[in-house]
Amino acid sequence: MSHSYKQNQVIPYYMCDRNQQLTLSMLVNLLMEVSENHSAGLGREESFLRERGISWIILRYEFSISRMPKYNEEIEVETCATEYNKLFTYREFVVRGNNKEQLIKAKATFALMKNDTRKMTKINSEIVEPYGATFSKRIQRNVKPNEINLTCASEQHYFVRYFDIDTNQHVNNSKYIEWLLDVLPPAFLSTHGLKHGIITFDKEVKEGDEVTSIVNKPAGGQLYTNHRICVGETGHASATFKWTEQSRMELDDGNDQ
Amino acid sequence: MSHSYKQNQVIPYYMCDRNQQLTLSMLVNLLMEVSENHSAGLGREESFLRERGISWIILRYEFSISRMPKYNEEIEVETCATEYNKLFTYREFVVRGNNKEQLIKAKATFALMKNDTRKMTKINSEIVEPYGATFSKRIQRNVKPNEINLTCASEQHYFVRYFDIDTNQHVNNSKYIEWLLDVLPPAFLSTHGLKHGIITFDKEVKEGDEVTSIVNKPAGGQLYTNHRICVGETGHASATFKWTEQSRMELDDGNDQ
Repeated sequence: MSHSYKQNQVIPYYMCDRNQQLTLSMLVNLLMEVSENHSAGLGREESFLRERGISWIILRYEFSISRMPKYNEEIEVETCATEYNKLFTYREFVVRGNNKEQLIKAKATFALMKNDTRKMTKINSEIVEPYGATFSKRIQRNVKPNEINLTCASEQHYFVRYFDIDTNQHVNNSKYIEWLLDVLPPAFLSTHGLKHGIITFDKEVKEGDEVTSIVNKPAGGQLYTNHRICVGETGHASATFKWTEQSRMELDDGNDQ
Repeated sequence: MSHSYKQNQVIPYYMCDRNQQLTLSMLVNLLMEVSENHSAGLGREESFLRERGISWIILRYEFSISRMPKYNEEIEVETCATEYNKLFTYREFVVRGNNKEQLIKAKATFALMKNDTRKMTKINSEIVEPYGATFSKRIQRNVKPNEINLTCASEQHYFVRYFDIDTNQHVNNSKYIEWLLDVLPPAFLSTHGLKHGIITFDKEVKEGDEVTSIVNKPAGGQLYTNHRICVGETGHASATFKWTEQSRMELDDGNDQ
């Protein structure tokens, strides 16, 4: 039976945007921290993997968001590893708010990378046994982000910064999210909330890279956006986000916290 | 008598650099969070100021660092407001590590800004009375960062990003620190630790700005760097950092946490 793990967190201001709501980038950081603490409690912390020359990489996120946590709100993050096969493990998260209401459901697909070759390697039961996830031969067919329409796309360029690189010596996943979202118009971002998102990470971005963040901007009242992160001509990540308009009242409610 | 406030924090991976040490940018975020929690406990939270049309801005930081906290280390941050005059208040911080040893001393200079005019305004006793700081007519003459030598400077350009803007509607101070440090060579940053820093914030950076981060890079074994952040020709921030070489052993010790 799958073992679940919970952790509470009061949302500090530095995890929030100008509307005092948790940013998607910081949500991902929190989920990964809770995931790592879960692993550490089971004796499968990052150093256990490092001694075996391997590390986890994230290949896909999917988020369903009722509302983003607000500044100063105490949330509970619950996670468990649900299923694995020879290539992937799947982890689910539920984020609950002040009154235990469900704010966010998220799902992540992990794979194991060999640190020397930086290629994926088979998942053996020694690594995943303590989590109590179910083994299934079946590789899940998860929905992919929409293809981007390059004929009506906008783009911006970003250089990888020193502090974008994490202890895995590649750009941390949360930084991709900053590039994905920063190309959207500020007037859109400040008045819309994220309802649903799918992000796939296809290829590592490394020190010295210049990335292009490409987007089909929302137009004509359309409330979804398609995204791609490239280095040169090569795709490194894709995403589709669905949005909802946020009223001034909802935002002011956040600011009253 | 000045009232002091303490808060503990376990350092999560997303606050750390590739060497698993707390970043200066995240240190500043933590200090500001502890400072705000201190204020809230005294009934002087951000919303109290907002109702009066004012907010705190930071004009200067000074850091003395024995060593930066490591990933997973539990630190204690203690702070108190030490002194104020009609224009400035001064706050001090001590960061202690696992064994209560002092890791960091920091000092910050705050001023009050009127939110409508975005100009500084006089500090009245209603605002600062609960902190128990000493009133002194004397305006402290704090050491400034060194002047930058433009004849041997390097520079990089950065566009302000959507998520750089905080609830004060200007770029958060911690983002200046990312620009200040990112211009240094990765080979230097990954092998040197910060021992001392002075940063002054002279002018707000706003949405839509393109900033230039200028640096006198360390050369010939010199272990200090002078920095300036400009928008066009106008200086918005300055800094001087002193560094020490970090041995592989010290860094591996961090990674063993």
